[in-house]
Amino acid sequence: MSEDVPVILVIEDEEAIQSLVEDALTEGGFEPAIAASGEEAVTLLQGRTGNYRALVTDISLRGKIDGWEVAQQAREIDPQFPIVYMSGASAGDWASKGVPNSIMLAKPFAPAQLVTAISNLLNTGTPTA
Amino acid sequence: MSEDVPVILVIEDEEAIQSLVEDALTEGGFEPAIAASGEEAVTLLQGRTGNYRALVTDISLRGKIDGWEVAQQAREIDPQFPIVYMSGASAGDWASKGVPNSIMLAKPFAPAQLVTAISNLLNTGTPTA
Amino acid sequence: MSEDVPVILVIEDEEAIQSLVEDALTEGGFEPAIAASGEEAVTLLQGRTGNYRALVTDISLRGKIDGWEVAQQAREIDPQFPIVYMSGASAGDWASKGVPNSIMLAKPFAPAQLVTAISNLLNTGTPTA
Amino acid sequence: MSEDVPVILVIEDEEAIQSLVEDALTEGGFEPAIAASGEEAVTLLQGRTGNYRALVTDISLRGKIDGWEVAQQAREIDPQFPIVYMSGASAGDWASKGVPNSIMLAKPFAPAQLVTAISNLLNTGTPTA
Amino acid sequence: MSEDVPVILVIEDEEAIQSLVEDALTEGGFEPAIAASGEEAVTLLQGRTGNYRALVTDISLRGKIDGWEVAQQAREIDPQFPIVYMSGASAGDWASKGVPNSIMLAKPFAPAQLVTAISNLLNTGTPTA
Amino acid sequence: MSEDVPVILVIEDEEAIQSLVEDALTEGGFEPAIAASGEEAVTLLQGRTGNYRALVTDISLRGKIDGWEVAQQAREIDPQFPIVYMSGASAGDWASKGVPNSIMLAKPFAPAQLVTAISNLLNTGTPTA
Repeated sequence: MSEDVPVILVIEDEEAIQSLVEDALTEGGFEPAIAASGEEAVTLLQGRTGNYRALVTDISLRGKIDGWEVAQQAREIDPQFPIVYMSGASAGDWASKGVPNSIMLAKPFAPAQLVTAISNLLNTGTPTA
Repeated sequence: MSEDVPVILVIEDEEAIQSLVEDALTEGGFEPAIAASGEEAVTLLQGRTGNYRALVTDISLRGKIDGWEVAQQAREIDPQFPIVYMSGASAGDWASKGVPNSIMLAKPFAPAQLVTAISNLLNTGTPTA
Repeated sequence: MSEDVPVILVIEDEEAIQSLVEDALTEGGFEPAIAASGEEAVTLLQGRTGNYRALVTDISLRGKIDGWEVAQQAREIDPQFPIVYMSGASAGDWASKGVPNSIMLAKPFAPAQLVTAISNLLNTGTPTA
Repeated sequence: MSEDVPVILVIEDEEAIQSLVEDALTEGGFEPAIAASGEEAVTLLQGRTGNYRALVTDISLRGKIDGWEVAQQAREIDPQFPIVYMSGASAGDWASKGVPNSIMLAKPFAPAQLVTAISNLLNTGTPTA
Repeated sequence: MSEDVPVILVIEDEEAIQSLVEDALTEGGFEPAIAASGEEAVTLLQGRTGNYRALVTDISLRGKIDGWEVAQQAREIDPQFPIVYMSGASAGDWASKGVPNSIMLAKPFAPAQLVTAISNLLNTGTPTA
Repeated sequence: MSEDVPVILVIEDEEAIQSLVEDALTEGGFEPAIAASGEEAVTLLQGRTGNYRALVTDISLRGKIDGWEVAQQAREIDPQFPIVYMSGASAGDWASKGVPNSIMLAKPFAPAQLVTAISNLLNTGTPTA
């Protein structure tokens, strides 16, 4: 893990989307770190939140906890932690299940949308909702 | 229920706060409608969401569901429904348990904060987070 | 016209609403100045925009120009001029006919909503949409 | 028209700018769809708004309606439709002729500004003005 | 100092304005605490920042440090501390001398503007600039 | 200096970061103009602010004035001038020493964050804090 590049924790089962996300982040100058499940992501965040600068997560995950739950736990660990959700079917649930100051990317989305979403959440002084 | 005044649904067990909330809303020109529990509030919203313009809720409620849960259900009924939470001990949980575009009033708060919070959420064109 | 109180230009034909607006502004510490029609409002703004700090206008007016048109002309005179619309039937047209950075108050609204809307638009450093 | 890429409707007569816009959108992961005039754009949006995710339009167009008018009609069809204007001479008119929650790109602008503008408007949870 | 009312620290030499500020805060449900100079305000904030919820300050003060300097020191003590400036002549300097996420009230301002400014800064989830 | 590309004034002593900034801006479609010191940047801005569209500055500079001071002077010349700060050690001082409506990029940051920050500040209609 490089010291000079912001590392973004990514949870995405679907290979095509995972690839798109990794490429988009890398091209934007971020370093993607893939977690295999929500449980693994939470474990990684508990151990060293400071090493990750943001979470990008799909909603339906293969483990027992879904993306909504992962984001909640990430925010319990760090109340300011930047969260980006990606979803097709569940995008409409963001208003009831998302955390404040997070961003939902409704699939299909362009790589630029992901990079802009993360950049806005990381840049001190840019408001989000 | 007057037709010409925006009605605000309020869930607050503690009498002193309920009084403060009712007075603040009335003085601001709103009509408070008190629900005795989260369950009652959800029932009222299901029946006629259109009659209520916003929800103001304490976090710890005497029924089985707390303020976080009521807000989630209100947003499932209407994804744009304005939500204001009030809390002392639980204010710090807003980042993990609140819904997007809601406002948390940390107790003690001034009546003007409540009125401003609701006004901002109701006024089309005013962003909130 | 007092020198020490922000003057708000108001265009509202309906007497009941005009009264509510005048009372709300006065109680908030503003001085309402009533214009009888959109045409008169534009003339007043052309002559001395600096004397008025914001425009509050109904959509359907008795003259030849409606509230959308008055707001457009006010913004041609001063691109930063704060605008608050009030409407029942036409509130839904705000997204296509309103000017940027304005606020639409859908009737019925509470006096506090009007005062908060104007305050937000006047306060340097408070973003609006 | 691919199903997995957000399609952006573009109206731009000037070839150099059209080229820049197409390249910027494609590189950002969007699919540009060029309309020859404002009239054609409105027809396309009426038929299938859902297929287009945003409108990017120049102000001076070769048909009878200009960019301001196209944006107004797009918002009548869909009040939430994301709008990005591009202009040199007319950028200053945005405050009086633009629709709420739109973005004006004053020429000359960098491709990154266009991609960021569209991404912000598409990303649920990012406020704009 | 009441435990149940948010206390706002106020620095204002001019008696007429100090009176207006005290009345506006009290009516909004806040408790004003007057500091005689910028130096005294900084001392009070160092000792017990937690007791004060926001700072309202004039720019020209009778001591050695002005309002810009007091706000900077308040933010060094607490980087999130809410700041509202009031000024006539110096309002235009806010863009170069103000701190981020503060609000400037240009004199003359209405009491409602002050109360709305403070409420917005205190209400978690309301963005400011 | 091209007429058709937005020129961004950059002050950065550290060669590795300067390179990253130049590459990021160029790839985003901006033209970077490097100033050797804060003093030189201020001189350039005084002479022809209109030619530069934004300032990107490190905090610790080799001259007598640091990045905070350069930004203040830029805002005295043009109160709306877009400012992006970059810093490692001093990022935490943004809340007390930064100017309103500026963005702080905490090092290490990704190139996409810089490009998004500048784009947001330049795009009329995108709020920042």
